[in-house]
Amino acid sequence: MATARDRLVEAAFALFDEQGYDATTVDEIAERAGTGRTTFFRYFGSKEAVIFPDHDQLLDQIRGRLASAGRDARPVAVTEAARLVLAHYLEEGELARARYRLTTTVPALRDRELAGMVQYQRVFRTFIHEWLGGGPESSLRSELMAAAVVTAHNHVLRTWLRGHTERPLEDFDTAMAEVLALFDQPAHAPRGSTVVVLRSSQDLEAVVPQLRRALREAALEM
Amino acid sequence: MATARDRLVEAAFALFDEQGYDATTVDEIAERAGTGRTTFFRYFGSKEAVIFPDHDQLLDQIRGRLASAGRDARPVAVTEAARLVLAHYLEEGELARARYRLTTTVPALRDRELAGMVQYQRVFRTFIHEWLGGGPESSLRSELMAAAVVTAHNHVLRTWLRGHTERPLEDFDTAMAEVLALFDQPAHAPRGSTVVVLRSSQDLEAVVPQLRRALREAALEM
Repeated sequence: MATARDRLVEAAFALFDEQGYDATTVDEIAERAGTGRTTFFRYFGSKEAVIFPDHDQLLDQIRGRLASAGRDARPVAVTEAARLVLAHYLEEGELARARYRLTTTVPALRDRELAGMVQYQRVFRTFIHEWLGGGPESSLRSELMAAAVVTAHNHVLRTWLRGHTERPLEDFDTAMAEVLALFDQPAHAPRGSTVVVLRSSQDLEAVVPQLRRALREAALEM
Repeated sequence: MATARDRLVEAAFALFDEQGYDATTVDEIAERAGTGRTTFFRYFGSKEAVIFPDHDQLLDQIRGRLASAGRDARPVAVTEAARLVLAHYLEEGELARARYRLTTTVPALRDRELAGMVQYQRVFRTFIHEWLGGGPESSLRSELMAAAVVTAHNHVLRTWLRGHTERPLEDFDTAMAEVLALFDQPAHAPRGSTVVVLRSSQDLEAVVPQLRRALREAALEM
C-alpha cells in the first residue's frame, strides 16, 4: 500500500506529464492522490520540491557515508557517497527519466535542480576541506575536488538519461578514477626537480600509493 | 550622460537596496530611471535580469578570447577568458558587492546567478572539448576542466566580495595555475612504468623521511 507521500509524488509526475507543469496546481495533485492540500505541504515545501522527493534523504546519506570514512579510505568514501546518489536515480528508472524531461523543459525546475546540485557539492566540499586540514590554503582545492565529483556524477547520470550507456555504474567508477587521479598529486607545482633514489624490495605497484600518500601528508603538515 | 540602460540598472540597485527586491516593481524601477516599462523590457527580459546587466556581453567576450586562441596558447586563453570576467566584477566595485548582498539573500536571484554560471561553464566546456578532439572520450575531461575554471573564478571572486583579499587578480593567477597543473598530465596513468616521478613542493629533507617511512610501511603490509 503506497503512502500518501508516494501517492502525491506519483500523482504529480502523472499530472505534469498529462497537462504540463505550469498548468498543474497543488490542489489537483492532492486531489489525484486522494489527500488534501495540507498533506501536500506537510511533505513538500513547494510544487517544485515534489519532483525531487528524496533530495534531503540523499544529502543525509552522503553525509553519513563521508562521516564514517576512515583516514585511509577517504577517496573510496567519496566515490561511494556519489555512487549512492547515482544508484538511487538508476533505481528510480522511469521516474528519473520523467524528471529529466521536466528539468530540461521547465526553467523553474532546472533552477531547482541546480540549487540541489550546489547543496551536494557543498557537503563534499565541507568534508574534503576538513580532511585537508580546514585552513584557507586548502579551501580552493576542496572546492575543486567537490566540483569534480559532482561533475563526474552528473556526466554519467546525463549519459544514462539520454540512453547512451547500458553500464552507468561501471562508467561512474571509471569517471571517478579519472577524478581521483587528477587530485592524486600535491596541490602546488614543484619548485625545481630533485632525483631521490629510494630502495625497496617491494613491488612498484604496492609502493607507489604509499609514496603518494606520504607526499600528500608531508604537504599537509607544512 | 548615462544611457537609459545605465539609469535603469542604477535605479534597480538603489530601489532593491532601499525597499527590498521583492517589494520593488519594474514600474517603480522605470519611473525612477525616467523611462517607461517598455524601455525596461527592451533591455532586460525580467526583473531578475537587471542585476546581471552585462552577462551576455561577458559570455561573448569569453567566446571571443577562446576562439582567438592559438594552438599553443590555449591554457593562457582559458586563464585570460576567466580573468576578463573577474576583472569586470572588480571594476564594478560597489555594484558587484550590492549584487552579492542580493544573490545571497534573494533565492530567485541566487538561482539566476547559478544559471548564469552554468552558461559560462558551458562556453568553456564547448571550446575545451573541441580542442581535445570533440569525441566522447574527452567529454568528461572537458566538463571537469570547465567546472574547475569556473570554480576557481568563483572562489577568488567570493574571497574578494567578502573582503578577504586585497589582491584578487594575483590570487586568481595562483588559483588558475593550480587548476592548470591538475590537468597538466595525461588523462590515464601509464601502466608498467619503472620510473616513478613524484612531485612535491616540500623541501627534500622534509619529504625523504616520509618516503622512507612509507616504504617501510609498504613492506610491513605485504
